[in-house]
Amino acid sequence: MTKNTEPGAQSGTIRLFALPDFPEVQNGDDISLFLLDSLEKAGIALQAGDLIAIAHKVISKAEGRMVNLDEVEPSLKAQEVAATTDKDPRLVELILTESQEISRMRKGALIVRHRLGFTSANAGIDRSNVSQDTSGEWVVLLPVDPDASAARISQEILDRAGVSVGIVIVDSHGRPFRLGTVGVAIGVHGIPALWDRRGESDRYGYVLKHTEVGTADEIAAASSLLMGQAAEGQPAVLIRGLELPPIPGKASDLIRSRDMDLYR
Amino acid sequence: MTKNTEPGAQSGTIRLFALPDFPEVQNGDDISLFLLDSLEKAGIALQAGDLIAIAHKVISKAEGRMVNLDEVEPSLKAQEVAATTDKDPRLVELILTESQEISRMRKGALIVRHRLGFTSANAGIDRSNVSQDTSGEWVVLLPVDPDASAARISQEILDRAGVSVGIVIVDSHGRPFRLGTVGVAIGVHGIPALWDRRGESDRYGYVLKHTEVGTADEIAAASSLLMGQAAEGQPAVLIRGLELPPIPGKASDLIRSRDMDLYR
Repeated sequence: MTKNTEPGAQSGTIRLFALPDFPEVQNGDDISLFLLDSLEKAGIALQAGDLIAIAHKVISKAEGRMVNLDEVEPSLKAQEVAATTDKDPRLVELILTESQEISRMRKGALIVRHRLGFTSANAGIDRSNVSQDTSGEWVVLLPVDPDASAARISQEILDRAGVSVGIVIVDSHGRPFRLGTVGVAIGVHGIPALWDRRGESDRYGYVLKHTEVGTADEIAAASSLLMGQAAEGQPAVLIRGLELPPIPGKASDLIRSRDMDLYR
Repeated sequence: MTKNTEPGAQSGTIRLFALPDFPEVQNGDDISLFLLDSLEKAGIALQAGDLIAIAHKVISKAEGRMVNLDEVEPSLKAQEVAATTDKDPRLVELILTESQEISRMRKGALIVRHRLGFTSANAGIDRSNVSQDTSGEWVVLLPVDPDASAARISQEILDRAGVSVGIVIVDSHGRPFRLGTVGVAIGVHGIPALWDRRGESDRYGYVLKHTEVGTADEIAAASSLLMGQAAEGQPAVLIRGLELPPIPGKASDLIRSRDMDLYR
């Protein structure tokens, strides 16, 4: 390996670093401080153009989005849906509260359109990677406004470290047509979420007609490879070397409206 | 940057290198030789555990999957569909030949279930990044059997370089619910395509119930960030440092059967 050893030193090289020893997050914790501490311990100085991808769960926890199921009173509607789907009525109550509408349901499955616009199982609520105690069974909801969370974290990092970094907040979604969850962007700041490349020419001069790239989702998927789903405990990933245009984006740019959705 | 400078030196770091100066591919070209030449020129020696992601188009071209539209005779069915979708009847003829069925169509859009099982626009056929000449208008179909292509390339690299590498063949697909194309895996060899993590414990000891990860699709999406869609001309990406279980996979593992598809 004689070349490409300096991170970001040239076009065509991307590096993803899982930030080591990221601490356990509690309600009220300062995520940008945790990110900067972890980077410092790893000996990494932020550079312009760096991105940080963060698993939504640590944002949710810092924002106090944990709910004790013992304190949830399921509505009649939630009890009906719970009976159909064979799910905990208290969990279903939370799912419905977080959703615009039920997309599909059957035994074992509840797919909804989340209030944030995307379609996912259980409105992104689950109990994996949530510390449990004797007070009840805890679950975590998605952040209230993940784009705003991403913007706040980016601003705090700028204030404290003097570097403007892009932020992508990541959830894992199941998909129509294809098996397996993949990381998707539910919060974005400082990068294009959807990169419109129509009008650019390919290498033979042919003008692209249809290419809009889900850039933030590709970043989320890449980061998800390092975050893992199980015991890795690596909720934050630094991405260096990715060259993107300075187009501000937000996660809602990636939502396909129903009347434009010929794929369904 | 004092740490993480040796590629793959530790867990938690992934590096993606776009192979430089990848040559123009013609019918009959030897892709594994091109890959090894490009790596050698870049001064990169393959290591066990390396993956190579390849844009499907260079595989298709090497396998002679270019078609001159002037030589295509559209059927009556193709002419009908072309009228509905406002597409070239010769292109529609090829799309139908490559498809199991039409999923949805309207003016400007033709979504099909490809003979390989996935659902995509225009059966993956387009004319971007295809060299044109005066003999007609050329388009490129997907490889006949991308899993077999991936296996063959991996075997040839093993024979020539003595290193076993995983291969992912990448296409860009539009998606239901979300805007923007993302890289997906249409050919896989030597890595899990779908990584079943059910039964593993999270960091608090909670046993995961539902987590099957679309690992090969996440790799395809990550690689797609470097391949670009326009003039970059970087169709091959080396991925180093990703730790995966030694589970052989194939792209068809990622196809969700219709009766299990509650997301649609």
